[in-house]
Amino acid sequence: MKQWFTFIYGLGLLMCLRKLAAAISLLFILAASTGAQTKTVAERLGYPADAKLLIVHADDLAVAHSVDAASFDALDKNAVASASIMVPCPWLTEVAAYARNHPDADLGLHLTLTSEWKIYRWGPVESKDKVPSLFDPAGYLWPETVLAAAHIKPEEAEREIRAQVERAVASGIHPTHLDTHMGTLIATPDLFAVFVKIAHEYNLPFLAPRLLGERGKLLSLLSEKDLVLDSVVMANPSVHADAWKDFYTSAIRDLKPGLTEMIVHLGHDDAELQAVMTDHPDFGSAWRQRDYDFVTSPEFKKVLKENNVILVKWKDLGKLLK
Amino acid sequence: MKQWFTFIYGLGLLMCLRKLAAAISLLFILAASTGAQTKTVAERLGYPADAKLLIVHADDLAVAHSVDAASFDALDKNAVASASIMVPCPWLTEVAAYARNHPDADLGLHLTLTSEWKIYRWGPVESKDKVPSLFDPAGYLWPETVLAAAHIKPEEAEREIRAQVERAVASGIHPTHLDTHMGTLIATPDLFAVFVKIAHEYNLPFLAPRLLGERGKLLSLLSEKDLVLDSVVMANPSVHADAWKDFYTSAIRDLKPGLTEMIVHLGHDDAELQAVMTDHPDFGSAWRQRDYDFVTSPEFKKVLKENNVILVKWKDLGKLLK
Repeated sequence: MKQWFTFIYGLGLLMCLRKLAAAISLLFILAASTGAQTKTVAERLGYPADAKLLIVHADDLAVAHSVDAASFDALDKNAVASASIMVPCPWLTEVAAYARNHPDADLGLHLTLTSEWKIYRWGPVESKDKVPSLFDPAGYLWPETVLAAAHIKPEEAEREIRAQVERAVASGIHPTHLDTHMGTLIATPDLFAVFVKIAHEYNLPFLAPRLLGERGKLLSLLSEKDLVLDSVVMANPSVHADAWKDFYTSAIRDLKPGLTEMIVHLGHDDAELQAVMTDHPDFGSAWRQRDYDFVTSPEFKKVLKENNVILVKWKDLGKLLK
Repeated sequence: MKQWFTFIYGLGLLMCLRKLAAAISLLFILAASTGAQTKTVAERLGYPADAKLLIVHADDLAVAHSVDAASFDALDKNAVASASIMVPCPWLTEVAAYARNHPDADLGLHLTLTSEWKIYRWGPVESKDKVPSLFDPAGYLWPETVLAAAHIKPEEAEREIRAQVERAVASGIHPTHLDTHMGTLIATPDLFAVFVKIAHEYNLPFLAPRLLGERGKLLSLLSEKDLVLDSVVMANPSVHADAWKDFYTSAIRDLKPGLTEMIVHLGHDDAELQAVMTDHPDFGSAWRQRDYDFVTSPEFKKVLKENNVILVKWKDLGKLLK
């Protein structure tokens, strides 16, 4: 039950904490409608059934140079195992150059249907004429998950995320997994169906939470091979800046057997990122600096070791789909 | 003759110093084909015919936060009089917010058909399928003026720059003038014709050099009201970093009667701009820091005063069109 709340809360945060109630109600629909896996991911990877597997994952690559610099550094130091890329964002070319120079890096796509910052916006990859429902009145992607979920036509979401995958591949990125920026692609059953369809089409593992694996009408969308996360660890605004390390170390001590993803948002608290994240302390530049400081700290390595956490990557999971 | 070379050289630099020979050959065509104005701009503005008028102009707003921050600061201090905005670039929304909060600011549009940096790229404002000739093979605007000029269909250039004007207006910007990033819209007679057409349509003054006003086949494009610049002052790679102030102060001392635009490229030499301008010291982040340092220095104010330079804005010129 705790994991359930943790996950719902985390997704709400991904949606920028706005319209949380509406987002949760959408998730309830999903939670009631999916099916169970018969074998744990740990067993499928050759570990004991009660192993504690953790993917340490950095979100939002390509959104800003500051995020890229911090994330590349954390990847290079093995402080994070995996990361995902926002293809419509201005710094995609920087990330593509990194991907080409680091062919072993575990980089997925953070499929993006929203543009949430105040003075720094982006549009879709697909031709505007082909995806009109993706645009807010200002001419950019919708700023909030609930607005995106309410307005986007599923066939246009499919067109756009296929364009994002194709653009990434064309730029030399070989994605190891797919996930979804601000949870938009798990915000409604129709959008989730698009997400699953594209993931299956490209034969990639994707972020599907355990809650979606219980029972119900979406069961048929998940194949026997599909993987589900048992829980997600992510900082949230109730965590005081001074308690950042305590939050993460406690979460790692409390890890249950199963597959957990720890989602971090890395960046440097510099002029660029402060401007991108103007008026938005949650998931802002100081937040991202704290995440960066924690994952690159010796305390993080120590607590992982002390708690017998097995670090895995999305590409390990991808091998199960072959 | 010196002015002529200065201008040709300046435009070559605007084109990032690549393919200079090809660019100059295009300009020769233009230089041989335009007509003369009958009255000087100084006279039309009510100054003596031999007045030295200077527009101190910052280019490239919206390309990066670092450029915006330095340019807003210089505008606020009256260190520069005017600036122009790259509408397709990621930070447009930041500039639009500044424009709405500073309705008297003299802001024009730096019409953009190129995307020249290595790891930070952008596309057009118009729907992709309506402007296919604007794209390089990587899916962004062409990186060089000569490539853009060789590939872009004039009717698609017109569609795109009209979309840029409309996007700017919709975001709350009231442009006072139009100019052209990297000189693309003055690189061929066909593109120049599009530039003039759009400027006339919106009744805005635009950057037309004296060279275009001599004689020839483009004469019919310029109306009696259109304004032409007599010369352009801009730093170039032959200027050593230590001689930056000397270059500008000498240029101001050497100003001839007529209308001159001093084009500066402002920015801070910080992590963001160093990354945007990777592998490109010409017009790079240190260059932009030097330009910022010079225009905000007391020496700049002093040399302008000592040389009886009359500072004007594009919106002063715009009044002549009403």
